[in-house]
Amino acid sequence: MSEVEAVARDQLRSIVQRIERLEEEKKALADDIRDVYAEAKANGFDTKALRTVVRLRKQDAAERQEHEAILATYMVALGMVAGE
Amino acid sequence: MSEVEAVARDQLRSIVQRIERLEEEKKALADDIRDVYAEAKANGFDTKALRTVVRLRKQDAAERQEHEAILATYMVALGMVAGE
Amino acid sequence: MSEVEAVARDQLRSIVQRIERLEEEKKALADDIRDVYAEAKANGFDTKALRTVVRLRKQDAAERQEHEAILATYMVALGMVAGE
Amino acid sequence: MSEVEAVARDQLRSIVQRIERLEEEKKALADDIRDVYAEAKANGFDTKALRTVVRLRKQDAAERQEHEAILATYMVALGMVAGE
Repeated sequence: MSEVEAVARDQLRSIVQRIERLEEEKKALADDIRDVYAEAKANGFDTKALRTVVRLRKQDAAERQEHEAILATYMVALGMVAGE
Repeated sequence: MSEVEAVARDQLRSIVQRIERLEEEKKALADDIRDVYAEAKANGFDTKALRTVVRLRKQDAAERQEHEAILATYMVALGMVAGE
Repeated sequence: MSEVEAVARDQLRSIVQRIERLEEEKKALADDIRDVYAEAKANGFDTKALRTVVRLRKQDAAERQEHEAILATYMVALGMVAGE
Repeated sequence: MSEVEAVARDQLRSIVQRIERLEEEKKALADDIRDVYAEAKANGFDTKALRTVVRLRKQDAAERQEHEAILATYMVALGMVAGE
């Protein structure tokens, strides 16, 4: 193996090891998140609503409210909810 | 190639062709759906709200309303909306 | 309801119905594809390899071979396979 | 607000905060992984092959080799590669 090849091989190993370590940490966090939801469920919380809350909190409040308003209009027009 | 191998090869080809044809049809439908949304957008409809409506209509109405009620409770508790 | 609102409502209903019909057809095709794989499995084929074959056939042959060659180099460098 | 409601509200806030903190950390790791791939690309590595290597390394070597062998048989049968 040439010097150049040896350097490339070491670089490749380093890259793959870094990715694998980061992916392990990411997986551990995904497991932690799942555990928090499981604990919340055990304490009587509704995990589906929790997930929706977490998703909605990432959105801008004004945009979210506008989306809700349009959605409500469509649902009334489609007879999915009683209109006013 | 033995008789058995020839039969297996023909079976394999037939399977792959059937899957590919079905996947093409499925992709064509996905394109059609995208086109309907694009046309709706061009006619002034909000496609994000449309997608939410389509998703909600698949759910049982009673379950959906229960989910909305729990969600509203959580949002008030978290100060995301003004409570009553 | 004004004339304009009635037109918009009819448009909305038509859009939603078209999307729902297309999504049903798309789901039926997804079920058909799953059935072909199940049938193939029952006939002794390896479905994981089948899925890989179907995926690879969508790629350009020259690009696929180049990808395989690079991949083989990396795997040798990482000691995943015996090199030559 | 009753004592019970106040406790539930505090629990809810704590749950949501824990999830949000964990999700932020998870997102930061996903960004780090993307950066490693970007750096590898800048150094001349093929990121598609890198991703395949990382995926393959998670698999059992014996299973991977069996999969490759079946795949090669299917590809020859379908005329995707020259057989021996």
